[in-house]
Amino acid sequence: MEEKKECETSEDCQSCGQSGSCSEDDKQAHRDQMLKENLSRIEHRIMVMSGKGGVGKSTVAANLAVSLARKGYEVGILDADVHGPNIPKMLGLEKEKLIGTAQGMLPIPLYPNLKVLSMAFLLPNTDAPVVWRGPMKHGVFQQFLGEVEWGDLDYLIVDLPPGTGDEPLSIAQLIGQVDGSVIVTTPQEVALLDSRKAVVFSRMVHVPVIGIVENMSGFKCPHCGKEIDLFKVGGGEKAAVELQVPFLGRIPLDPKIVQDCDRGQPFVAANPDSPAAQAFSEITDRLEEFVLHQEKAGPKASSSEKKEKAGRVSKFKEMLK
Amino acid sequence: MEEKKECETSEDCQSCGQSGSCSEDDKQAHRDQMLKENLSRIEHRIMVMSGKGGVGKSTVAANLAVSLARKGYEVGILDADVHGPNIPKMLGLEKEKLIGTAQGMLPIPLYPNLKVLSMAFLLPNTDAPVVWRGPMKHGVFQQFLGEVEWGDLDYLIVDLPPGTGDEPLSIAQLIGQVDGSVIVTTPQEVALLDSRKAVVFSRMVHVPVIGIVENMSGFKCPHCGKEIDLFKVGGGEKAAVELQVPFLGRIPLDPKIVQDCDRGQPFVAANPDSPAAQAFSEITDRLEEFVLHQEKAGPKASSSEKKEKAGRVSKFKEMLK
Repeated sequence: MEEKKECETSEDCQSCGQSGSCSEDDKQAHRDQMLKENLSRIEHRIMVMSGKGGVGKSTVAANLAVSLARKGYEVGILDADVHGPNIPKMLGLEKEKLIGTAQGMLPIPLYPNLKVLSMAFLLPNTDAPVVWRGPMKHGVFQQFLGEVEWGDLDYLIVDLPPGTGDEPLSIAQLIGQVDGSVIVTTPQEVALLDSRKAVVFSRMVHVPVIGIVENMSGFKCPHCGKEIDLFKVGGGEKAAVELQVPFLGRIPLDPKIVQDCDRGQPFVAANPDSPAAQAFSEITDRLEEFVLHQEKAGPKASSSEKKEKAGRVSKFKEMLK
Repeated sequence: MEEKKECETSEDCQSCGQSGSCSEDDKQAHRDQMLKENLSRIEHRIMVMSGKGGVGKSTVAANLAVSLARKGYEVGILDADVHGPNIPKMLGLEKEKLIGTAQGMLPIPLYPNLKVLSMAFLLPNTDAPVVWRGPMKHGVFQQFLGEVEWGDLDYLIVDLPPGTGDEPLSIAQLIGQVDGSVIVTTPQEVALLDSRKAVVFSRMVHVPVIGIVENMSGFKCPHCGKEIDLFKVGGGEKAAVELQVPFLGRIPLDPKIVQDCDRGQPFVAANPDSPAAQAFSEITDRLEEFVLHQEKAGPKASSSEKKEKAGRVSKFKEMLK
């Protein structure tokens, strides 16, 4: 049997001139090779999960990505919610469309060092539902990870839809080595019930749990300043202790977050001094610590690569001042 | 070719003594037959959907079912959120387990005329995630609809997980003739974006849209009584006008709803005089009107069946007094 050569094109199989003579197996092998090459340029891969929807998972994912970018890192954010892709709307990119090049699709830049990819960029209009079963979603994730020109990234933040079904399974399987998962919950018991499932799921697929974020935690009346017991407080921290995973912090409910999401401006950039932005900043620090601690345990990058990365980080910090 | 006889057992294929000699095709035909028989005893089938999670879809589904039961109807509620099954917790049934009999599984009764079925009743503990792809979920829905002894129902309310993927597709396909869908949203734009997709989806699968419910609509500080602009007001109604579907009503945000959900007591039963319960009651009336209007357009039940049903309804009304 003739030994298979690695495919030499950097083009995906729909745009490659040689694909007519390739078998389905050849094409899959080429896709896997492109995926592997793309992933090798992404230093840290983080999954943002929740058991339940509507706990602010996308808000947390978007603001974590913006916080990391503001610290100077090269960041990508992959909106893996195919049916309800809200990241573009939250970041003011809802009118953008993906552009394909011979080298692959280009993600949409929010800042020079923050790139965004979402199903929303491929839809004909914002009302169009994506009526797909699991295998179709797996296929699109393979393209989003393997055939998109992400370039060199320090962090890829994947915003997953709620639940423990096809999407998180496909993402965990395609990425292979995920650094860790951030589990977002609100403090009320019904949400905690599902978040605990997300922690167990993360362990099942061998993704370390970076920790639990308690969102919409506590609320003060903007008129009289008194505390309102809306979704309660402290449930996320209690769950973290019980499940023996780190607690990353609590983000207070702030109507400005809802308004900023609707207006498409990243909250942490628009209100850097608010208590909620402060909370995001502390959570980002803990995420960085976790990742650095992991690196110490088993360094991935060589010293010359680290030096190059340090230079890149300070260049972006300069640009964002 | 020998003509196939209908299977005469009312048992599912895992419990039937003859199944050893049946082919896979026979078994599937038997499952389809059981599904058809079960569905023929359910007068109205309603899907409760949302594009986005966390908008209170399960809360609306549970309280609609309780409202209908309190009006004397025979009601079933199917929790079709396999990954985050919260209906049992909301109705105080979280410790219940399904019991299998030769005639099928028995749903759990909340009232004599309100039966509940959920994946939660099959899990070893509340932390256990269900890590399933779509085909597994399709299989369990086939069982939940075909091999569960629902009996005669006036209404089956199906609480779907968010999105337009495997679950709503499977449910729409298995039930076949769905009377209509109730789309739940919150007023903020990010949620509306996804709810509009749910409306388009419903039309795509030929399920009439009964209307949009605007949940968490408006909020008054419990201390100073002033209006707080948390998730805004009116977005759901605006979307209904734009998409030309009925608007079913708005439910104000009430911290008591969160508390009651966590405590496992149905809000509309515990606080019948609150503005939110009033809103649920009006929405239930509109649902009934829709269904009666549909019946007039093409009556399903004979007059003797209607008489029997009327008798059953008044019997339950008596019991619930």
